Amino acid sequence: MSEELEGNCLVAQSGGPTAVINASVAGVVAEALNNPCIEEVYGGMNGVLGILNEEIIDLAEESQQNVRGLRYTPASALGTCRFKLKRDQEYERIIEVFEAHNIRYFFYCGGNDSQDTADKISKLAQSKGYDLRVIGVPKTIDNDLVTTDHSPGYGSVVKYICSVVRESAMDHEAMGQHDLVSIIEVMGRNAGWIAAGSTLAKAKDNANDAPHLILLPEVPFSKDKFIEDVQAVLKKNKYCLVVVGEGLIDKDGNYIANSASGQDSFGHQQLGGVGDFLASVVEQNLAVKARSSKLGIGQRAAAHCSSQTDNDEAFLAGKAAVKAAVAGETDKMVILVRAEGENYQCETSLAPLSEIANGVKEIPEDWISEDGISMNAKFIKYCQPLIQGEVEVPFENGVPSYVRLSKRRIRKVLDPHEFE
Amino acid sequence: MSEELEGNCLVAQSGGPTAVINASVAGVVAEALNNPCIEEVYGGMNGVLGILNEEIIDLAEESQQNVRGLRYTPASALGTCRFKLKRDQEYERIIEVFEAHNIRYFFYCGGNDSQDTADKISKLAQSKGYDLRVIGVPKTIDNDLVTTDHSPGYGSVVKYICSVVRESAMDHEAMGQHDLVSIIEVMGRNAGWIAAGSTLAKAKDNANDAPHLILLPEVPFSKDKFIEDVQAVLKKNKYCLVVVGEGLIDKDGNYIANSASGQDSFGHQQLGGVGDFLASVVEQNLAVKARSSKLGIGQRAAAHCSSQTDNDEAFLAGKAAVKAAVAGETDKMVILVRAEGENYQCETSLAPLSEIANGVKEIPEDWISEDGISMNAKFIKYCQPLIQGEVEVPFENGVPSYVRLSKRRIRKVLDPHEFE
Repeated sequence: MSEELEGNCLVAQSGGPTAVINASVAGVVAEALNNPCIEEVYGGMNGVLGILNEEIIDLAEESQQNVRGLRYTPASALGTCRFKLKRDQEYERIIEVFEAHNIRYFFYCGGNDSQDTADKISKLAQSKGYDLRVIGVPKTIDNDLVTTDHSPGYGSVVKYICSVVRESAMDHEAMGQHDLVSIIEVMGRNAGWIAAGSTLAKAKDNANDAPHLILLPEVPFSKDKFIEDVQAVLKKNKYCLVVVGEGLIDKDGNYIANSASGQDSFGHQQLGGVGDFLASVVEQNLAVKARSSKLGIGQRAAAHCSSQTDNDEAFLAGKAAVKAAVAGETDKMVILVRAEGENYQCETSLAPLSEIANGVKEIPEDWISEDGISMNAKFIKYCQPLIQGEVEVPFENGVPSYVRLSKRRIRKVLDPHEFE
Repeated sequence: MSEELEGNCLVAQSGGPTAVINASVAGVVAEALNNPCIEEVYGGMNGVLGILNEEIIDLAEESQQNVRGLRYTPASALGTCRFKLKRDQEYERIIEVFEAHNIRYFFYCGGNDSQDTADKISKLAQSKGYDLRVIGVPKTIDNDLVTTDHSPGYGSVVKYICSVVRESAMDHEAMGQHDLVSIIEVMGRNAGWIAAGSTLAKAKDNANDAPHLILLPEVPFSKDKFIEDVQAVLKKNKYCLVVVGEGLIDKDGNYIANSASGQDSFGHQQLGGVGDFLASVVEQNLAVKARSSKLGIGQRAAAHCSSQTDNDEAFLAGKAAVKAAVAGETDKMVILVRAEGENYQCETSLAPLSEIANGVKEIPEDWISEDGISMNAKFIKYCQPLIQGEVEVPFENGVPSYVRLSKRRIRKVLDPHEFE
């Protein structure tokens, strides 16, 4: 146990929002208020971007209702950013802001890039002899952070997608008269964790349940094999439901649907995403109808169908970050650790920020079935516990009712930062 | 009160599924079992298509759990069809099947086309002197049935879409750093009821809430006006959220995205839907990023976020159909009637099937604001009550758990039908 460090804490959020990243902030706030060495509990607006501008709010002034409401409110209540600090000047400015407000604890909720930023801030503070404890809180629907068993945000997006897949499948089954190929495009630019998770929509006792084909960025796309796979499903079933990750690539590593160039990897003009592309492949090559849907941004914010397990772990991770910092830890990220044994249990531990920053966790090859289009029991055993339990979201006037923080800004004391 | 008619009843489902059409079947079954004049309670598989083939199940043999589970199970538990009876021979066959199984009560859950079919079956029975009472049960997410105030299925799809819109909006707001145009494509080929309903995602006290633009098939699309409208929103807001009905048309009445021809109405090759088209219009004409999503089939089956009011009314409509038939009514559809007064109250009444069959209910012109992109207070007053209350869906292993009927077929007694 290192010596007690007195001062203020600041929590901020970075990268794409999730259904549970605010639960992590709630965890930080709840635990910070338990520790007398932490004086003020601040929130940084829009990640490092707001901190550069001294856009800081007093979280202790928020009503208890608001803080409690963070537990089920999706997106990033403090605002977020995809801004990458580039110049030394910018890092210096962050430390300057921290010094100006006696911020001694910095909690950053985010993915790889954000933990890289946190790491650099931490190292700079050390080199300047400014006593600062920096702890990262994992967050990403993509589930691609290394060292942690899984990441808060992932279980909830999977739960929502499984619900949509199961409900869509029931619709197709009811229609049941003609061959139909239905394609659901989900997020996941670099890893297929999200698409893979949709396998949990299958009932345990029915291997023929949807999704029938899961297309992952980890398995290079072959048009011929895809057509064969669809045909094989349609021999057994009246419809074929395909879940595809947006980042599907061909054998040369090119995205099948490249939204930047507006072309697919075959050079065709392509307005839609990879789901639309697959639908056109089906209709051009098989005498069946294809439909596609694309769940879009809504999937990562779908708190109305989010996982209580995921939510609890996000909250736990926030609390663990504060506990670790108060105990003297710094330059680490909270990780989730799956306890040994048959029954799922999740604990927290710590890993160096530098390790997180430079890794991408891929789906282990031996969790994907040999057919390349389905997940095996190892994956299911891993993923199943993460979607358990339903977060109860309050509705008002028929629509989910979420909180908006009152965001009382603290007084700026520095001159505005002028670079950029 | 006409004289009591003894015999069996048959309920069937037709057209696109909804989140609550099974609740109507549950209502029929519950009420049928209350009436001793109804002997057997049968279900016809896949609408008239299954009836032609004597594919009939004994609903009284289903467990109570199953029948109770129909209350929250989406899609069509009896299977459905889009099959249109064309030849006299086919209508004759339906009557033959009814006679063979002493079916004296026929309840058909469906939209315009289905009620047209029911009407013709009823008239044929009358002309043949076969005593049959036919009552339609309204069903459509499109809300385009005439004479009824609204249709079961509509409130639930609106509730789900409002949840997705609100959650997506919170995500965009959190990102908040750059101009973004987000387009959500929803169902509605011929009428904009569904897209219009998304207006309920706005909080009462915040006119700047999403959705910022609602594009309806009722208001011909103009590219220039659309670009201007987006620009106007982006002057006030950091992002612009657009909800568009899939059936958006241009001033000549052509679909903006014509999935049949694979071309948009300007003759460009078009794989995606109208949402993708609008995104490309934004990116080509304004220096902002656009994203689109397309909720697809999942939206009409989203029981996990369905309206209790809608569900109750679907059940009520099923019960009302049986009550009316037992009381001697025939050749009518149950309609929902909004009671006078400030507080919403829904009652049932009856309207002739022939009236339903030939009408399409459009959004009254004076419910659309003059700007052509938003709904006014009249629409809100109409739609708001329909999404109230949340259906509690059981989850098992993290995913909504719905029932599947055991579907015990009754013995066929006729020769197979051979035409077609």
